[in-house]
Amino acid sequence: MPETPLPVRLLVCVTCRREGDDPEAPRQGARLRDALAGMLPDDVELQPVECLGNCKRSCTVALSAPGTWTYVFGDLTAESGPDILTGIGLLAHSSDGLMPWRGRPEVFKRSMIARIPPLSTLKDAAE
Amino acid sequence: MPETPLPVRLLVCVTCRREGDDPEAPRQGARLRDALAGMLPDDVELQPVECLGNCKRSCTVALSAPGTWTYVFGDLTAESGPDILTGIGLLAHSSDGLMPWRGRPEVFKRSMIARIPPLSTLKDAAE
Repeated sequence: MPETPLPVRLLVCVTCRREGDDPEAPRQGARLRDALAGMLPDDVELQPVECLGNCKRSCTVALSAPGTWTYVFGDLTAESGPDILTGIGLLAHSSDGLMPWRGRPEVFKRSMIARIPPLSTLKDAAE
Repeated sequence: MPETPLPVRLLVCVTCRREGDDPEAPRQGARLRDALAGMLPDDVELQPVECLGNCKRSCTVALSAPGTWTYVFGDLTAESGPDILTGIGLLAHSSDGLMPWRGRPEVFKRSMIARIPPLSTLKDAAE
C-alpha cells in the first residue's frame, strides 16, 4: 500500500436522471455532484461531465488515478456520495493499479459498468 | 477532418463469452481479437485485455486515440470486425475528439456502454 494516497480524478455525469424522476427537478447527477463537492478530500479532482454514455444504468461516475485502471460505475443516486468516497479511498491506496474487491461498497461490486487499463500497463504488456 | 488519421488504440476483451456459447469452444472475445488481427490497418494498435468489466453485455471493445474520448462498446460477437473497423475509421478522422453519430454501425449506436473524456478536455474545462 503506498504511503501517500494517489490523487484520484472523479468524473460525475451531471446529465443523468433516474427513471421516474420529476423532469422539473434538478437532475440526480447534478445533485450527486453537488453532494460530492461538499465531502471530498482536497486531493480529489472532481469534474462534472455531460454524459458518460451510460444512460441505461444512471447515475454514473468514472474514477482513475495516475497509473491505475479507469473504473466506470452506474446505478448510483444523489445519495451515493459516501459509497463513492469509500471507492476513492480504495483506489487511492492501490499498489497494483486495480481497485480491490474487498472493501468495495455493494454498489461498486454490483454495478461496475466498465474498466479500462492504464496506458502504462499496455506498454508493459507489449514489451 | 484531419488530413492524417489519428492512431487508434483498440482494446479487445479476450475473456468475453456470449450467453449460450459452448464452454469448450474458444472464447468469442478471443475469436474477435483473432479476426481483427487480420483486418486492421498498420496504424491501429490492437491490445488484448483480460476483462474490460462489461461482462453483462459482452463481447466488449474500447477505442481511443490521442486527444479523443475513450469509447466502450458491447453486445459484439466474433463477427463484429467489419463494424469495429468502421468505428475506428470514424474516430481516426474525428476533428473534435468525439466519434460522430452519423455513419456509426448500428451496434455502435445501440450498444455504447460508456465514454470517457480525454484529460485534455478536462484541463480545458478547468481553466
